[in-house]
Amino acid sequence: MSATPKIALVTRLSDDAETNWLNLLRAALPAEHIESLRRMRPEDHAGVEIAIVANPDPTDLRKLPNILWVHSLWAGVERLVAELPDFNRPVVRLIDPQLSRNMSEAALAWTYYLFRDMPAYARQQRAREWCQQPYRSAASVTVGVLGLGELGAASAERIRAQDFNVLGWSRSQKDLPGIISLSGKDGLAELLSHSDIVLCLLPLTEATRGLLDERAFAAMKPGAALINFARGPIVATDALVSSLDAGRLSHAVLDVFDQEPLPPESGLWSHPGITVLPHISAPTDPRTGAQVVAANIRAFRENGRLPESVDFATGY
Amino acid sequence: MSATPKIALVTRLSDDAETNWLNLLRAALPAEHIESLRRMRPEDHAGVEIAIVANPDPTDLRKLPNILWVHSLWAGVERLVAELPDFNRPVVRLIDPQLSRNMSEAALAWTYYLFRDMPAYARQQRAREWCQQPYRSAASVTVGVLGLGELGAASAERIRAQDFNVLGWSRSQKDLPGIISLSGKDGLAELLSHSDIVLCLLPLTEATRGLLDERAFAAMKPGAALINFARGPIVATDALVSSLDAGRLSHAVLDVFDQEPLPPESGLWSHPGITVLPHISAPTDPRTGAQVVAANIRAFRENGRLPESVDFATGY
Ligand SMILES: NC(=O)c1ccc[n+]([C@@H]2O[C@H](COP(=O)([O-])OP(=O)(O)OC[C@H]3O[C@@H](n4cnc5c(N)ncnc54)[C@H](OP(=O)(O)O)[C@@H]3O)[C@@H](O)[C@H]2O)c1
Ligand SMILES: NC(=O)c1ccc[n+]([C@@H]2O[C@H](COP(=O)([O-])OP(=O)(O)OC[C@H]3O[C@@H](n4cnc5c(N)ncnc54)[C@H](OP(=O)(O)O)[C@@H]3O)[C@@H](O)[C@H]2O)c1
Repeated sequence: MSATPKIALVTRLSDDAETNWLNLLRAALPAEHIESLRRMRPEDHAGVEIAIVANPDPTDLRKLPNILWVHSLWAGVERLVAELPDFNRPVVRLIDPQLSRNMSEAALAWTYYLFRDMPAYARQQRAREWCQQPYRSAASVTVGVLGLGELGAASAERIRAQDFNVLGWSRSQKDLPGIISLSGKDGLAELLSHSDIVLCLLPLTEATRGLLDERAFAAMKPGAALINFARGPIVATDALVSSLDAGRLSHAVLDVFDQEPLPPESGLWSHPGITVLPHISAPTDPRTGAQVVAANIRAFRENGRLPESVDFATGY
Repeated sequence: MSATPKIALVTRLSDDAETNWLNLLRAALPAEHIESLRRMRPEDHAGVEIAIVANPDPTDLRKLPNILWVHSLWAGVERLVAELPDFNRPVVRLIDPQLSRNMSEAALAWTYYLFRDMPAYARQQRAREWCQQPYRSAASVTVGVLGLGELGAASAERIRAQDFNVLGWSRSQKDLPGIISLSGKDGLAELLSHSDIVLCLLPLTEATRGLLDERAFAAMKPGAALINFARGPIVATDALVSSLDAGRLSHAVLDVFDQEPLPPESGLWSHPGITVLPHISAPTDPRTGAQVVAANIRAFRENGRLPESVDFATGY
């Protein structure tokens, strides 16, 4: 093991959370010398070859002049891309099969939440009202999944396996069994007009910011519902609230927000048509995450190869 | 077609609901003459051979002296058994694969509801509180299914397919792939002590009435949750409320009650640890139900055979 660390952990996490990652990464990579930037001497900065980051302060990353590449511990990298527009080394994001499983599980769970009328039954319970909502079979319900990447494809497949009709939308056309794959503007319009539930799993980029706006909601099936498990700014919140208030949309499940934690004074908390979740749809498991990062670093050490890295032009 | 009806529809349903069934049954059995008892002349009662019933008034059934057998439109027959203890003709209950699918879907949906902490997140939303509940994977959670009949087995299999550990309990030992099958008193104790979520899909009989009582709740894993999708009186409601109040159980999802509709003055409506559903877990679909009944009647006409009928000794 080298005397000076060749891998730096650069995060804005709490000390406890960072130490947890550090311990797991060290255990998974016993041949490497990994240190938190917080505890590194300035004279060691130049020796760092790889930065493992979680929402890093850009100033911190710039302290490491000789890094070859960056591994993010997060699946979404829109903040990194936004804060380091001129960054010219590869950024690898976390693609953890366990994260995809967790997300597809959440996608199915909250699809059922909407499909089996749980918001309505909760309202009725508060009103002490006994009333059976009409039942439609899953086979008569269409779920539209925006984004068919690691998380979107896994979610679409899991929802499809429970008999729902599934439409998917992505930049490039996909070929997923049982799922109608759409792309382009027309594809988006088709998905929105046919889906009873729209599930957003797009990355936040310049092309997707505010994509779900007044026009998109107007194009949706009357009474349809929205699930946003991706990033807050993809949805134009004011337009969403108006569409719910006007009864055009029936409900929204939001796990992500423009500002997180959602401020206590936000009106979203008390909106009867909105279910607020505290960014829990797909929790990263540091144990499996550390294994994925370790495998990528080991492969790089062995043969110099990296997994596909983030495209700073498209932003994901 | 005979001049006098050989099949009578005997229900306590509303006129509209009964007419809907009558139309569907007539369409499915064009060779039969089916009439509602409500619209039948007394002199025709003696000619009736088969009664199709939904929660019938026992006095009504006794008006038909020559019926050979009874087909219930419902899956649960405990009321029929209780109200007609000396009935000596076969009673066939509705076994509709679509009903099993609906129930297993509800079983999975409300398992997710509990497992993904939806009650806690709803509480937090009302308190404008942003707080992430610890995540455990489905593979580390055990669901115990009481009753492995048509509905219980379908539910156990569907929950198992989503990675949960599943224990099942029934009178006779079962052999279901991936599911640990238990029986007897010891089996019940084992299921209760190992399950994070207990799902009740037993029939209501003399042996199951009040089965989930104070002792059963004391035997459950601390913090476990209950789903009752079977019949209200299987659960001792007062004991359930005490166990929730004492924090021994974390939550209960109740779809069935001692009295239905649940009276507006019931304390269950406002209990923070109870989710009240208005008997919607597995809605009967009269279209598929009528097809199942028709197939059973056609088979009887062709070869005199009946599906397995209700055992009045065990009560299901
Ligand atoms: N709520 C949470 O707990 C949580 C957890 C993790 C991640 N996330 C969010 O989920 C997002 C998706 O993650 P992922 O791993 O699935 O990303 P990914 O693998 O990069 O997939 C992104 C998908 O979106 C499509 N897409 C991107 N831009 C598009 C555009 N302009 N028009 C149409 N389709 C477009 C891509 O199309 P192509 O396939 O054609 O490239 C791809 O199918 C992340 O960016 C992150 O923001 C949320
Ligand atoms: N909430 C709703 O919307 C709804 C809708 C339909 C039905 N239901 C209820 O669901 C119940 C179950 O329906 P099903 O069609 O699955 O019934 P089923 O096919 O008769 O199955 C009953 C199961 O319970 C087991 N069982 C019965 N008595 C037992 C005892 N004393 N100890 C241990 N196990 C016992 C049976 O064991 P064996 O296999 O060994 O016989 C069997 O596995 C119905 O009776 C009805 O009350 C509710």
